[in-house]
Formats: sequence, structure tokens, C-alpha cells
Amino acid sequence: MPLELKRVLIGKPLPTSRATHERLNNVQALAVFASDAVSSTAYATQEILLVLTTAGAAALGLSIPIALAITVLLAVITLSYQQTIFAYPTGGGAYLVCKDNLGPKIAQVAGAALLLDYILTVAVSVSAGVAALTSAYPVLHGHTVLICLAAILIIALGNIRGVRESGTVFAIPTYFFIVMACSLLLSGFYRYFTGHEPVVPHHSLVATESIGFFLILRAFASGCAALTGIEAISDGIQAFRPPESRNASKTMIAMSLLLGFIFLGITWLSHHYGISYREHDPQTVPSMLASAIFGRGFLYLAFQISTMGILFMGANTSYADFPRLCSFEARDGYLPRQLTNLGERLVFNNGILMLSLLASALLITFHGSTDRLIPLYAVGVFISFTLSQTGMVMRWRKMRTPGWRLKATINGLGATTTAIVCLIIGYTKFTHGAWIVVMLIPILVTVFLRINLHYQNVARQLRFDPALPKLRERAHNKVLVLVPSLNKGSLPAVEFAHTLSGTAVGFHIDTGRDPVLEERLHELWEKICPDMPLIIVHSPYREVVRPILQYIDEMKASGGGPVTVVLPEFVPRRFWHSILHNQTGLMIKWALLFKRDVVLCNYRYYLEQ
Amino acid sequence: MPLELKRVLIGKPLPTSRATHERLNNVQALAVFASDAVSSTAYATQEILLVLTTAGAAALGLSIPIALAITVLLAVITLSYQQTIFAYPTGGGAYLVCKDNLGPKIAQVAGAALLLDYILTVAVSVSAGVAALTSAYPVLHGHTVLICLAAILIIALGNIRGVRESGTVFAIPTYFFIVMACSLLLSGFYRYFTGHEPVVPHHSLVATESIGFFLILRAFASGCAALTGIEAISDGIQAFRPPESRNASKTMIAMSLLLGFIFLGITWLSHHYGISYREHDPQTVPSMLASAIFGRGFLYLAFQISTMGILFMGANTSYADFPRLCSFEARDGYLPRQLTNLGERLVFNNGILMLSLLASALLITFHGSTDRLIPLYAVGVFISFTLSQTGMVMRWRKMRTPGWRLKATINGLGATTTAIVCLIIGYTKFTHGAWIVVMLIPILVTVFLRINLHYQNVARQLRFDPALPKLRERAHNKVLVLVPSLNKGSLPAVEFAHTLSGTAVGFHIDTGRDPVLEERLHELWEKICPDMPLIIVHSPYREVVRPILQYIDEMKASGGGPVTVVLPEFVPRRFWHSILHNQTGLMIKWALLFKRDVVLCNYRYYLEQ
Repeated sequence: MPLELKRVLIGKPLPTSRATHERLNNVQALAVFASDAVSSTAYATQEILLVLTTAGAAALGLSIPIALAITVLLAVITLSYQQTIFAYPTGGGAYLVCKDNLGPKIAQVAGAALLLDYILTVAVSVSAGVAALTSAYPVLHGHTVLICLAAILIIALGNIRGVRESGTVFAIPTYFFIVMACSLLLSGFYRYFTGHEPVVPHHSLVATESIGFFLILRAFASGCAALTGIEAISDGIQAFRPPESRNASKTMIAMSLLLGFIFLGITWLSHHYGISYREHDPQTVPSMLASAIFGRGFLYLAFQISTMGILFMGANTSYADFPRLCSFEARDGYLPRQLTNLGERLVFNNGILMLSLLASALLITFHGSTDRLIPLYAVGVFISFTLSQTGMVMRWRKMRTPGWRLKATINGLGATTTAIVCLIIGYTKFTHGAWIVVMLIPILVTVFLRINLHYQNVARQLRFDPALPKLRERAHNKVLVLVPSLNKGSLPAVEFAHTLSGTAVGFHIDTGRDPVLEERLHELWEKICPDMPLIIVHSPYREVVRPILQYIDEMKASGGGPVTVVLPEFVPRRFWHSILHNQTGLMIKWALLFKRDVVLCNYRYYLEQ
Repeated sequence: MPLELKRVLIGKPLPTSRATHERLNNVQALAVFASDAVSSTAYATQEILLVLTTAGAAALGLSIPIALAITVLLAVITLSYQQTIFAYPTGGGAYLVCKDNLGPKIAQVAGAALLLDYILTVAVSVSAGVAALTSAYPVLHGHTVLICLAAILIIALGNIRGVRESGTVFAIPTYFFIVMACSLLLSGFYRYFTGHEPVVPHHSLVATESIGFFLILRAFASGCAALTGIEAISDGIQAFRPPESRNASKTMIAMSLLLGFIFLGITWLSHHYGISYREHDPQTVPSMLASAIFGRGFLYLAFQISTMGILFMGANTSYADFPRLCSFEARDGYLPRQLTNLGERLVFNNGILMLSLLASALLITFHGSTDRLIPLYAVGVFISFTLSQTGMVMRWRKMRTPGWRLKATINGLGATTTAIVCLIIGYTKFTHGAWIVVMLIPILVTVFLRINLHYQNVARQLRFDPALPKLRERAHNKVLVLVPSLNKGSLPAVEFAHTLSGTAVGFHIDTGRDPVLEERLHELWEKICPDMPLIIVHSPYREVVRPILQYIDEMKASGGGPVTVVLPEFVPRRFWHSILHNQTGLMIKWALLFKRDVVLCNYRYYLEQ
């Protein structure tokens, strides 16, 4: 039954040979790689307004220049990453680029930053997706965290089953959202410019802060969440059809244009429709905009559903990225090896599990609120942007291929810009939550490096010397078989010990409790095993473990190889019968577990009744 | 440190050779064996009055005829047990006598009844002892249960340390109480007959029940608690100096006389001093009597302390009886064998632990109230009295020694009387708690018999046939060594396997993940172990456990002895390093644990860093 349930939920196991990537055409590739980046338009504008609203209605107009600045940043990063795509046609994620050009230690910083960001992507995307749902159905509002956890459970199960980067599956929700978002923006522009729609005055807003440089920086930092996910293509170039780099490059440009258009469009319309936003507002900004433009009808509902869909798709991409990065780190020896284990369905189950648990923990801690999660977000992404672009600069300086100076300048511009943005986010959001990420990154890096040191130590200890050894032949093994009593159950163990080594000895402890039984054992042994010695140790204090350990020490003192201890063990028919049998064997096992140069052999005898 | 703490609390281990009994002179023996019986005078009168009080002041006079009836019963039982003492000079506890004369199955009924009663003796005696304390110090009243548990803890620790039946230790509290009780009674009689003390009128008592036959029977049943413990001497005749039976007989008569005198005395004086008792009264009956006779001074306090002392001594005797009976039952195969294990200090630690836990549970359940525990008590004792005396009757009928008819009549009288009392107690107290014991006894007997059946089955399976086998010599062992990779850590395991058997083979699973590593393994194996086969199994679904199990099945199919599987295992320097190493070994171990005819050998390699 549990196996059958597993098959229904997870599907049949897949052979290792099927672990190759499906090649995507550009339309499919856009759907696969754009979902993370484009879905951030669902919350980026709102996070800008959340900051500006605190300075009253007059400040809201600033959202447009801020959005424009972010779009310029988008262009710079896109340009910069174009070069990475051509330089690393087999895939140039930040971890790989850093390892290649800045060394494995710096790569750990990028790795730690990315891993944290993948976790946050899941948390933020799921919370925003659920917010799109609760905006449409306010009755669900009180159950936000529960719905978030259910969504994570479904996404995780789908990934353990192996939702691969299948173009067709991804195409539906991604293009659905793109179509709905473009329809919304075009209807909005049409209505606005034809004067159909009066500009709604801003609700009376009480300013709690004044408009200042810091406030503007903070709004900008919040809006930078829009840029998360744009690096995804550089990581997955191998998924494109040949010529891979050219196709990837085209797709990335298309993605950036789409992202820029939708982000700017939503921000501009939100301002002109007089939308403001505060924490705990029951509706998201896109929901308010859609209900203003579409009215609360079928189109509104379709837009909300499409928003939720693309956000869950965005979260889903982290389920491919996080376990894959973990497996890279593990393969390089910076994370536990078991993260490289492929599950039955060729996915990294351990990574999927870890990601789900951590994202769920975040959602519970922050009550499933996108607004509270945002300050933690984007710091990690911008650290990895900066490191990756810096790595590219080092690469050009090293390679000195034709035109390297221009290329280095472009990546240098990218690195500098993203570094500045990174400082802005870290500075303006520090007390709001960014401190957690700023603190966690060095801790994680330290852990990664310590793990690596351990693996290196182990590998050094296990490595053969250049002159390979030959398999040594030992004259005989030192074998000891414990004989509490001699009967049909323990005799096979004695025979086994005898076959292991001609010099095997029986070992018995006499606690002086029952002289009759002792006498009987001697007699039986003489008759059945006349040629095998039986060592009898008297234990006046009824100790069992210590005399065994002492005798083993004596055997070890004579040198040569470990001592093999054969322990006869009864296996009762029902496991709860075990409590009716002496627990001494268990104590001996436990003690021998911590004894060096002892090989413990459990010789089991199965009781039939 | 923990060992040192253990030594302070428990003392040094004792050799088995010291497990002999100290012989006691009759004065010491009276102290050792009388504490349980005589201590019941501290609550027996009170329990009679508790029942009679419900019928108003007029009923209280009935306490004297009831006490007289109980004293007659005491005489009958004493007479009956005199015969047991002479018939079983090596000790004739109810379990032994029943096993001898009524068969092992009926003996289980006596065993179950006695075990329950020993638990109740601890609970009742401790609660009554604490009541003696709280009567003197009312401020402690709210902490009854806590004080009870502390008392059990101290008694249990003392017994694990091995408070043996040391005459001198027991003599002090027992004789202290006897002296104090006799002083109290003599002072009371003197004052009463010299008219010093006016007869205190009974406080106004509201009758809630009328005086009827059932009420009288119920009061009688409650008072029978006075007789618990009088069988103790028959169990411990070997502790007396020769002639053992004669000395034991004399001591038992002395004990019965003392018990009868103190019980009757307290009951008579309580009536003539106008003492009544209800549940939740802050003072016990002996405490009220002592404060009436001695006044609330030093003598009163000494009496209370002596009462507490003898009650705790009474509880302490169960700590010798319960584990000993458990060990008898375990030796006969009706309880788990480990109950026969002697601890470091030659006591049955497991039995002591069980008794303490069960008695504590009772005290917590019944809020440490003697009055509520009493209805459960005495049923078990009278069942064992009845069975033991019935056994004696069967014995006389079988032996037909001179005068057997008289002896059988005496024991028959004892058996009939105690059987009637047993029915009275069970009937009148059934709804007050006796049902628990009546229900538990058959359950326990069933469990005991099932355990015995299991042990018999096991013994039959393990027994050699009359024609003893000879130690067989097997040509070779089938040995398999698992080789995930070949390095300094796994090579010793391969060598070990090779030494175990010349036909040992290496076994490797290729999951197709890393062809380079596979190639390297082949090369190394060729160079290092050219003469040993390496079985390589391809596992396209990356399974590890199943191919091993399949190959073992193939090896087993060729017949002859079990398959020995050598599993190389790394032991990291720090245990938490374990999570950094592949957990596959653990999975394999677990799977092989349930595989028949497999001997698992863990060959460990210790990492130094």
C-alpha cells in the first residue's frame, strides 16, 4: 500500500540514462525562464508605493522616476549578462563564473547569497500568489499562511515527481499572464487617453514621513525586487536549441523588454488611477488596478488567476535552481555529499525537501506577508550579480581576446552599478530585515569552508600513496564467538566462527549464578566441539561487558589485524517478543560499537514460534 | 562523575558469593518480619470507624465486636500457617506452596494476587506513614502526594543500594513503635480505669446510612487490612537460626499476639475515648487517640514518628518480597527473564524499579489517601491465604503422614475462613475499588501463561536432539565485500574479506553517474586485487539496496551456510561529521537486518582528522 501510494503521487522511477535536457525552442524557453522575472511585476510596484505612501499622496508621483531608474538598471544588467551568455555557452551561473574567475572561496559567497535568495523567491512568490487569490476572494484572507503552506506542498510534490523544464507545461500559465497583463495595460492606456476613466483622487493619506533622499532610496531598493530572476537564462543555456548562445541572448532581450514594459506600465497606470498601498491592505496593487480597469467581473478574475499562476511558476523555478546549486556545491565538497543523490525520478529529493522546509519556516515566521519578506529579498541577488560581473571583468583581463577592453568595461559598469544597488538595499533595508541576510551569508560561507576542509582531510587520509599497495594475505583471523549457552540456536554461530578461522575460540562468562547450567555447558562443549577451545571467565560481580572487552584487548595485544567477534542472536517471530529475551546482547553490541579494531558479526537464529 | 555519583548513592558492587542470608535471632527476626503486619494497626481501626461513622454515633460501638472477630480470624490464620512453617522449613510462600500442591497454573493466580498486594502494601503503608506525619504537622497537609513520592524514592534507593534484612537496622524502628504503642495503650487503660479521663462524648454525627448487616460486613472487610503481612514469616524461614521451623513458629505466635493486642487495644480505647473518623479528617485515629492520652507534647510526637517509621519499614518489606517473587516467576518462565538479573549490589534492580513506579502511580491516582486505597487492598492477600491453605490441604491428603486428618482439618478451616472473608471483601468493596484487583488478576494470569508458552516454544526449538550433533566443518564461507570505492579506508575491509574466505568477492554498484570514477575503480582493483573477482552490477535506477539483496539471494541459492557481507564503514573523528558522509551504508545495514541467512560484518576505518 505505501509503495502504491508513492507510485500514484510520485510516479515510476526513471533510469539515469534519461537525465538529459529537453531542448526548447525560443517561445518555450521564454515561458520557462521568464516566469520568475516577469512574475515579480506582481509585487514590485506595490512595494515602491508601500514606502512612498508613508510620505503622503504628494510622494506617490515619485514612483514613475523610480520605476524608470530600475528599468535603466534592468538594461545595464541585461547588457552585462549578454556577454556571460556568449562566454559560457554551457551555462554561466554566478557560482560557476565566480569559481572560474575569482576562485572557489569567493564562489562560496555567491553560492550562499544565491541559496538564500532561492529560498526567499519561493517564500515571496508564494505569498504574493496567495495575495492575488485573497484579493479576489477576501473570505480566504484569514487563512493566508495555511494556503501558502498548501501551495508549497503541492509544488514540492510536483517537483519530487519531476516537473521537468517542460516547455508546454510552463507555456500555459506564463503566456496566460503575459496576455492578461498586456490586455490590462492596453485597456488602461486606452481608457486613460480617451478620457473614459476619470482620474481617481488619492484617498486622504496621512504622511508619517517627509519626502527625503533616504525615503526615495528605500522605495528604489524595494522596487529592485522586480529584477530578481533575470539571471536565470545565463544558467540554463544548454536548454536552448543550437546556436544556443544566440538563441539565449535573443530570449533574454525579449524577456527584459516584456519585464520592463509590464513593470513600467503597472507603475504608471497605478499612479494615474490614484492607487496607494499600505501594509495590511486587503487588496494588492495589481488587483486594485485590474478592478478599476476591468471592473469586478470575469476579466478581473482571469487576471488574478493568471497572476497567481505565474507567481507559483516563479516559485517553481527555485525548485530547479536550489537543488541544482546544492548539488554543485556538494559535488565540489562544500555541502554534504547526499545532496548529489538523484532520486527515483532523477531529481534531488534532499534539496527539494530542504527548500520546502526553509521556505515554509519563512512564511510562518513572516505570517505569509510579501511586504514583510521583501526587505530580506534582493540583497542576495545583487551580491551574486556583482560577484558574477566582477568575475567576468577578471576573465576578460586574463583572456585578453580581441575587444576585451570594451567587454571588460561593460561588465565593469554592470558590476559597479549592481554593487551600488546592493549597498543601497543593504543600507536602507538593514533594520527592516536585510540584516538577517547580511548576517547569514558569512555564517553560511564559514560552514561551507569548514565542510570542505573536512572532506579534504578525509580524502587525504584515504588516498593511496603513489606506489599502490598489494592485497595482503593474513595468516589467520582472530575470531571470538560469545557462548552464553550451547543450543541449537548458538551452535550455528560457533560453526560459523570455526569456519572463519581454525583458531577461533568460544568465550563464556560465568557469573556464578547457576553452577548446574555451567556444568551442563562444559559437558556439551566437550562432546560437540572437542577441538575448539572454550575460554571461561569468572565474573564475580556479574559484569558481562567488561570481561569481553578485557579479553579482546589481550587478543589485540598479540598484534595483527582486528578481532572478529561473533555474537549469536535470537530473532523472535514477533518483534515484541524481544522484551522477553535477555537484553545482554544489546549491551554487548553497544559497547563493541565504540571499541577499535573489532569487527562485530551478528549471527542470527530465527525462532519459528 | 556519573560513576562516582552512582558509587555514593548505591555503593560498591558486591560479588555473587556474598549472596547468602544472614541468620537472625528471634528478637531480630520479630523486628524484620513483624513490621509489615504490626504497622497495619496504624490504619485498621480507622478504616473500621470510617465505615461505621456513616451510620452515626450509635454504630461506633460495633467496632469492638468487629475487631474481636478479626482477632479470631488472626488466630485461625496463625494456627493454619504454623503447619506451613513446619511443612516447608526452607520457606513456604503462597506461590511456592501452590506450585507444589496445586500446580503451576493455579500458582500464577497466587502470584498475581501477591504481586498486586505488594504494590498496594507500598502505596498504603507510605500513605499511612505520611498521614502520621501530616497529623502531627498539619502544615504539610497540602503536600501529601509529594511527600509520598519522596518517601518511595528514598526507600527505592536504599533497596537498590541493598538494604538487606539486617536485624539491627530493622530492630530500632519496629521496637520503638512497639514500645510507644504499648505505652499509649497502658496509659490509656490506666487513665480510663482510674477515672482520670472523662469519656469524651462523640461529636454530633449525622447518620447517612442505617446500621445493617451489609454495613457491618463492610466495616469488617475494611478492618481485615490489619491481617496483611502476617504470612511474611512463612516465606523467610531460612533467615532463622536452627531449629529454623521452631524459631519461626515461636516468632509468628509472638507477632500475632502483639498484633492482636495493639489492634484490639487501639480499637477499644478509640471507642471509649469517643473517637470518630471521616474521610478528609486532618488527623488519623491513632493520632487523635495519642493526643487525647499523651496530650500534644513530646510523647505524642514520638508516637507519631514511631508510627511513620514502622509504616515505612512495612513498605520496605515489599521491596524484598516483590522483586524476589518476580525473580521466582521469571525463573519459572512466567515473567521476562531479565527480572532474574542481580544488580551490582545483589538486588533485583528491575523489580525494585517496577515496584516503585507502580506504587507511585497508585499514590498519584488516589491522591495519597489511605482511605481510598484500602478497598483495593486485602483482596489479593486473602486470595493467596486461601490458595496457600488449600494447597496445604491437598498436601496432607497426598502425603497421609501420621495425624494428617487433623492437619488437613486445620488448614481446611483456614482455607474456608479466608475464602469466606475473601468473598466478603470482594463483595462489600467491589464498587469502591476491589473490582480493579478482581479484574486485574485474570488479566495478569493470562499474560503470565502466554509468556510461559513463549518460553516453552523457544526452549523446544533450541533443545538438541538426544543424539548430540558434531561441530560441522564447512569447506568455505560465502563472503561478499561491498566496495563503493577502493581507497585506504576500504582496502583493509577487502583484505579482511579475503582472509575470511579464499572465494570472497568484491561487489560494486555502478549507478552510471560518474564514468570516470568507475574507470578509476576498475584500474585500481586490477592493480591491487588481481586475484579477487569484482562483481559490478549496473543499477540504471540508482538503487543500491535492491541489487545487493538480489545478489545475496543468488549466492544463497547455491546452498550451504549464510552469506557474510563485509561493509566498510568510516568512523569520523567527531560524531556530527557523520552527516557529511553518505548515508547509504546505513540504508544497507537496515535492509540487511531483515534479510535471513546474512551475517553482517561492519569493518570500521577510523578517520583521524
